[in-house]
Amino acid sequence: MASASSTFKFLSLLAALFAVVEMAISGDPDILSDFVAPLNLTTVDGTFFTFTGMRALVGAPPASAFKVSKASAAEFPALIGQSVSYAVLQFPAGTTNPPHTHPRSAELLFLVDGSLQVGFVDTTNNLFTQTLQSGDMFIFPKGLVHFQYNADSQNSALAISAFGSASAGTVSLPTTLFATSIDDNILAKAFKTDVATVQALKAGLKP
Amino acid sequence: MASASSTFKFLSLLAALFAVVEMAISGDPDILSDFVAPLNLTTVDGTFFTFTGMRALVGAPPASAFKVSKASAAEFPALIGQSVSYAVLQFPAGTTNPPHTHPRSAELLFLVDGSLQVGFVDTTNNLFTQTLQSGDMFIFPKGLVHFQYNADSQNSALAISAFGSASAGTVSLPTTLFATSIDDNILAKAFKTDVATVQALKAGLKP
Amino acid sequence: MASASSTFKFLSLLAALFAVVEMAISGDPDILSDFVAPLNLTTVDGTFFTFTGMRALVGAPPASAFKVSKASAAEFPALIGQSVSYAVLQFPAGTTNPPHTHPRSAELLFLVDGSLQVGFVDTTNNLFTQTLQSGDMFIFPKGLVHFQYNADSQNSALAISAFGSASAGTVSLPTTLFATSIDDNILAKAFKTDVATVQALKAGLKP
Amino acid sequence: MASASSTFKFLSLLAALFAVVEMAISGDPDILSDFVAPLNLTTVDGTFFTFTGMRALVGAPPASAFKVSKASAAEFPALIGQSVSYAVLQFPAGTTNPPHTHPRSAELLFLVDGSLQVGFVDTTNNLFTQTLQSGDMFIFPKGLVHFQYNADSQNSALAISAFGSASAGTVSLPTTLFATSIDDNILAKAFKTDVATVQALKAGLKP
Amino acid sequence: MASASSTFKFLSLLAALFAVVEMAISGDPDILSDFVAPLNLTTVDGTFFTFTGMRALVGAPPASAFKVSKASAAEFPALIGQSVSYAVLQFPAGTTNPPHTHPRSAELLFLVDGSLQVGFVDTTNNLFTQTLQSGDMFIFPKGLVHFQYNADSQNSALAISAFGSASAGTVSLPTTLFATSIDDNILAKAFKTDVATVQALKAGLKP
Amino acid sequence: MASASSTFKFLSLLAALFAVVEMAISGDPDILSDFVAPLNLTTVDGTFFTFTGMRALVGAPPASAFKVSKASAAEFPALIGQSVSYAVLQFPAGTTNPPHTHPRSAELLFLVDGSLQVGFVDTTNNLFTQTLQSGDMFIFPKGLVHFQYNADSQNSALAISAFGSASAGTVSLPTTLFATSIDDNILAKAFKTDVATVQALKAGLKP
Repeated sequence: MASASSTFKFLSLLAALFAVVEMAISGDPDILSDFVAPLNLTTVDGTFFTFTGMRALVGAPPASAFKVSKASAAEFPALIGQSVSYAVLQFPAGTTNPPHTHPRSAELLFLVDGSLQVGFVDTTNNLFTQTLQSGDMFIFPKGLVHFQYNADSQNSALAISAFGSASAGTVSLPTTLFATSIDDNILAKAFKTDVATVQALKAGLKP
Repeated sequence: MASASSTFKFLSLLAALFAVVEMAISGDPDILSDFVAPLNLTTVDGTFFTFTGMRALVGAPPASAFKVSKASAAEFPALIGQSVSYAVLQFPAGTTNPPHTHPRSAELLFLVDGSLQVGFVDTTNNLFTQTLQSGDMFIFPKGLVHFQYNADSQNSALAISAFGSASAGTVSLPTTLFATSIDDNILAKAFKTDVATVQALKAGLKP
Repeated sequence: MASASSTFKFLSLLAALFAVVEMAISGDPDILSDFVAPLNLTTVDGTFFTFTGMRALVGAPPASAFKVSKASAAEFPALIGQSVSYAVLQFPAGTTNPPHTHPRSAELLFLVDGSLQVGFVDTTNNLFTQTLQSGDMFIFPKGLVHFQYNADSQNSALAISAFGSASAGTVSLPTTLFATSIDDNILAKAFKTDVATVQALKAGLKP
Repeated sequence: MASASSTFKFLSLLAALFAVVEMAISGDPDILSDFVAPLNLTTVDGTFFTFTGMRALVGAPPASAFKVSKASAAEFPALIGQSVSYAVLQFPAGTTNPPHTHPRSAELLFLVDGSLQVGFVDTTNNLFTQTLQSGDMFIFPKGLVHFQYNADSQNSALAISAFGSASAGTVSLPTTLFATSIDDNILAKAFKTDVATVQALKAGLKP
Repeated sequence: MASASSTFKFLSLLAALFAVVEMAISGDPDILSDFVAPLNLTTVDGTFFTFTGMRALVGAPPASAFKVSKASAAEFPALIGQSVSYAVLQFPAGTTNPPHTHPRSAELLFLVDGSLQVGFVDTTNNLFTQTLQSGDMFIFPKGLVHFQYNADSQNSALAISAFGSASAGTVSLPTTLFATSIDDNILAKAFKTDVATVQALKAGLKP
Repeated sequence: MASASSTFKFLSLLAALFAVVEMAISGDPDILSDFVAPLNLTTVDGTFFTFTGMRALVGAPPASAFKVSKASAAEFPALIGQSVSYAVLQFPAGTTNPPHTHPRSAELLFLVDGSLQVGFVDTTNNLFTQTLQSGDMFIFPKGLVHFQYNADSQNSALAISAFGSASAGTVSLPTTLFATSIDDNILAKAFKTDVATVQALKAGLKP
């Protein structure tokens, strides 16, 4: 009968690291079945659990603009109930993924190729930034505004991001704010600018 | 490779039995005690569960600018573990609560006095707006960008907002984006504008 | 790049306050979409997110008896999945909201007008009471028996209560116990009284 | 003001795809470790996961009054984080477990020996009762008022109850209401009776 | 007005016991109604909340082989949304419940009769074992491999197990690994043995 | 005994209103702060949110045996409270990741390079398999036994796996079963084989 010494050490280490309190627990409510199968399928086999939509990215020519390819519940229904999803992010040289939030999950970015400037702002208005090199990961905490920028003028960058929800959602802030017909006056007051500036921003972001 | 026929049958059976609905998606994980008492208190009595910080608002002169007064876990520790909190919103005539998100909760606004234009944008970039009159409620779904505006040039408005978390958090977008030293270039690219416009916005929003 | 000193201070403060352990975490499971729209609506607009059922309370004559007006998932379906709801409580002079529990949420009461005696009993049978004045808030922890009483013989009181669930539910104890045909003998034994007293209580509470 | 047509379409698509089902609403947030070991233990072995406090019940003489023996987080700390606990209920002939609620869990009662009248009242004031025989189970839904009664004048009954929380908590209503110094007037108003009756009930339930 | 001294003491005790941090909180997401009633029932009464499937076990002759009888959501639909279920385990002399896991819940075993050797292995590969006597309980943490063995060559054993989910699920490892046509080569490599041994194991476990 | 007609009507009404949909079952409880910062850090900056432990894998020579590199809460504490983590899986030609489970999360595998045979077994003992090519994803549902095998005798394979928990945990079945001193007799009975075979398997898997 073994002792739980390694578990114990892990807890002790945490205790030392985090000193005292700990505020935060996190976990996923379960579904009541192994998975959620579509009722109109008469047979479920391994293909239901497979997503092939990213194959096209393998060996493809680089994207010409910043591009996100998602594998979330909408594209891959087998993820429903499993609390996890992916996005692949392609950054041609000098491109940016504009400031955005995910309402339903944190994002764990894995930089597979190239370099990337990343950052997020917490609810006390602190900016946290980092320059990542290939192989680095960065965690964008749940619900906070964040962005990525490939500052390299020559080389593209490629990242894979994981989410702790099957449907994290994305709120892109430039378009949410300036491409959805929110009243010019409200925006001018909110951004402490004039209506002309708001209209110019709206013109630039028109879909 | 087997079919998932038995799992499928179980789901089908449920479908037959329960016919349609789906009831339930939302709820709060419980704590393991009735409440969380601070360990440095030798006695806990009714005052621990009482928050008097809003008394000052009763009968006070109107605010001179838009003002939020919070009663969340930070101000009122007895809320920890109870999944609920409040904010009181004061809108002098013509003022706005700039676009923002709450990373950890939806917001249910109750307009106690005056009128208010409200809106939010969902993750598919649809804007939903409404003009509220006194007594109306409006729900801003979890994690989405929303705003309120008192369009009345004469009268102030007063709202109480409830949150389904003891610590909903607030991300105010103008300051998050333009008052936290995010690189000018990144912002210019993201908002499809020039660096001069970004710098002008930053100057206007400087704390 | 800013330091997270304010976040850090917040955590340190909590550490000081709560000294050691950590008991309690609370949060709301998310839905997989921004909101849950009824399928029989062909168009969803701002009115779906608006509840006008409390307008009637504005400027209405005072209630003649204690009265609860709810805005929960049953009255306001847009709340489904958002983990928050409201009730408005009107207390004419000298009236009481009888002891009750909410099976699915804590209650955060905001006393808007008048004064109110409030109390709850925890699972170790301790009573916590407080006399609230206008502007005060009081938290009734999840699932515990609580009550409110307007002891003022002249003035009415008005409170708004928020719940961290779209459907908190209410179990009113006098009617649950004595107006639902629970066997007289069981009640007599449980309350260590005689059947005649039980029957008298039942008669008084008959709907 | 935009319609939510795209959100709607996504939901409709899901409806078409998945047709009907989906029931699943319930589950337990996970801890971040296999179990939670006390930090003052230098070695954790199998005894930490064992509870021997019920041994005394085996072969013991019957209880002389209704008696509950608990195995929850307070008595058996290894349950912390595991979302499950037990109670053993002993009912001598003619005894009752008074109306009560569990704030943090449903109760699944398994009648091991004897017969038992059981019941609960839902939030719409419906009473559900059943007479159980040995081997039967009955589920008391989360947070609702329920009771058990051994109507047999000769034989005792024995039940085991499981809870989906390590710390379900118990609110016994007779003592919560009439043995905690809630003001006589409030109780008299709430139960629509007179102060004398309240005082008589309190006298009978005095600890 | 009582002080919360007993609650406080409980918290202090926990603080002393667990010394510092505590990593792990666990609770059950609520449903939005008291219970989930099947839509094809026109009337719900007490029988819906009653499960009689275990009556047959009372006074029945002992099982001739190890046998599990479940009362989970599949057999007893009223458990849906209530986060709790049961299994009854019958162990004739010398029989074993093979190593298995429950993907959606911990298991709290209550040994009603006989003796039992039990054990589980944590994620750091520590084995925890215990020999239980009648009246003992043992907690098998969520998702870990565990087993039970009645080492007594004469007497049978009987246990009741509670789960903190209405649908805990069971993954029996011998059959999952060796009775589901996983490729012989993969199994041989995984178990560091030869294909012949794998085929012999498969032959022994053929349904 | 009353019928639950009003509860039933409420459910029916919802069924009518919402007709069908609502899938959402899964999500992550929130923490009460943006992130959980270690208390012994006086300054938190971008490096706290960065994990560089995978840099070594970039451009490194291929692994000589199957190898898992994790980025979970233990290696990367900023993940605590964020419900997401990663593992990188390296498969030299002809190697296998033995059957295992993750007690606290589903696994979403992204095959970055090479080909891979994958499979899992559900709780009704159905095996689901698939042969993946580069760019494919496969979801292994929460808590189920699964494996991966690089059947290619020439080329290695590389996969990244995401988990919807900061600490998914791994239970490797060959070592859990045959390298933890579980009693030979219990294993022989469970796997319906003889003690000699069990001992041979144990010898092969000795650490």
